[in-house]
Amino acid sequence: MKRSFIRYISVQVHMEEHGDTLIGALVVGNEILLGKTRDTNTIFLAENLLRRGLKLRRWVVVPDNERDISRELSRFMEDGYGIIVVSGGMGPTHDDITVRSIARGLGISLGFNEKCYRRMVEKWKRNNPGKKMPETARSGLDKMAYVPADFDLIENENGMVEGLVGVVNGGRSIVFILPGVPGEYRGIVTTRKFQDYLPRKDASSVTIIEIPFRGKESMIAACLGEVQKRFRDIDIGSYPQGPMNVVIRVTGDRENVMRAVDEIRDRLREAGFSD
Amino acid sequence: MKRSFIRYISVQVHMEEHGDTLIGALVVGNEILLGKTRDTNTIFLAENLLRRGLKLRRWVVVPDNERDISRELSRFMEDGYGIIVVSGGMGPTHDDITVRSIARGLGISLGFNEKCYRRMVEKWKRNNPGKKMPETARSGLDKMAYVPADFDLIENENGMVEGLVGVVNGGRSIVFILPGVPGEYRGIVTTRKFQDYLPRKDASSVTIIEIPFRGKESMIAACLGEVQKRFRDIDIGSYPQGPMNVVIRVTGDRENVMRAVDEIRDRLREAGFSD
Repeated sequence: MKRSFIRYISVQVHMEEHGDTLIGALVVGNEILLGKTRDTNTIFLAENLLRRGLKLRRWVVVPDNERDISRELSRFMEDGYGIIVVSGGMGPTHDDITVRSIARGLGISLGFNEKCYRRMVEKWKRNNPGKKMPETARSGLDKMAYVPADFDLIENENGMVEGLVGVVNGGRSIVFILPGVPGEYRGIVTTRKFQDYLPRKDASSVTIIEIPFRGKESMIAACLGEVQKRFRDIDIGSYPQGPMNVVIRVTGDRENVMRAVDEIRDRLREAGFSD
Repeated sequence: MKRSFIRYISVQVHMEEHGDTLIGALVVGNEILLGKTRDTNTIFLAENLLRRGLKLRRWVVVPDNERDISRELSRFMEDGYGIIVVSGGMGPTHDDITVRSIARGLGISLGFNEKCYRRMVEKWKRNNPGKKMPETARSGLDKMAYVPADFDLIENENGMVEGLVGVVNGGRSIVFILPGVPGEYRGIVTTRKFQDYLPRKDASSVTIIEIPFRGKESMIAACLGEVQKRFRDIDIGSYPQGPMNVVIRVTGDRENVMRAVDEIRDRLREAGFSD
């Protein structure tokens, strides 16, 4: 029965162990919940994290509603999340209530941030050379300059509002608040300042090996289950990619991953699947 | 200053009022959290709900981890969600733990569902005419036939595992468990049976009017804020679509929406923006 094959993916992704730092995304957006806007921001974040060996653990989308926002923020903190990336709803209009909701959720007051205001005015002048700022723009910038006390700014080169970051929850959580406009969000996520807040690489590393398998998941279910039982410290996952196409992903310390992969291969060979 | 314009979108979406039925999506998927798979299922669900005048209120993605799954399910129930659509992790492999996690979260035991097993065997035979079912396939079907006691089946025409639905939380919540494979998920969401569980249309309806605005959000922030203050029962939202392109969306009962839209138009005209 040579109907399937296994081969190793040549690229091995080395992931750092990041202790217990849980990373969560809290996305504020009626538009996303209506299916009208795709949340490509969080996908971008996840990809960026993965490149550093970090994983997003929970991703929550809520409407532009103060109670929903602050409740989910509290839950992330309650669950011990070390990094919480909040995004969306930072603009100048009345329905942009994210910053206020986060501040209330944290029990922190909003204060007028002079530096934030100055930066936004500079950007406005750069974008509108020689013009006098109309009252509508000024009151928008004014609103956006009210940020949670003790929060720091992260420069947004692609838009008006500044990114925000604060250490909260008695030093246990870092909360980012980022604009939802994709260009602005991505720009901030790739700044040195944002990246520096993420957990650092350390000596121990995690190895991931992916094994493409041509066949149905049910064909390998028993085999993978048995190997998983023998290697409790590693993760063995299987992910259907199509009707006869599954990726088996083995994640953990290098030595055990290699042994488990060998064992999976041997068992599948025994079961009649070819390489 | 004729640099912008407002026009009405001709289509008016009539939405039903759906009382207090909160609808949530709980998506189980390591692959989605890694940014490797897009959760197009929930977008499909949101679009389908919207067509019936219903809105998704919360959308949570968690890893294939029993504690994460059951905790988020509990939170949906705690928050009074009437409809909870769980998806992903229903397959035959050891890392497909969604059904078990939901059952534990609900304090319900898993039982072997004879009807479910029979249906799957029939599908298998239809897909593999004349073949004898190998042991691997049989044990996969066997595992997938263990479903929470009292849950009902929803036929999945595009895959092996059956969709599940149960009335839980003392009759206050309906929980669906659907496979994550897009074709299977979509097939089940569009079944009559799934749709029949959703809240019904009633007499009162909600009107949505969208007003495209060429300009920056800051130009209209003050105006929208003031109109919102005068019409507290409707929702006025503004959503940037690009650097000089905003959609204003007014949602509520028809009469107030029309009055608010007229007022927004008048105020923007007064402020110097053209139609």
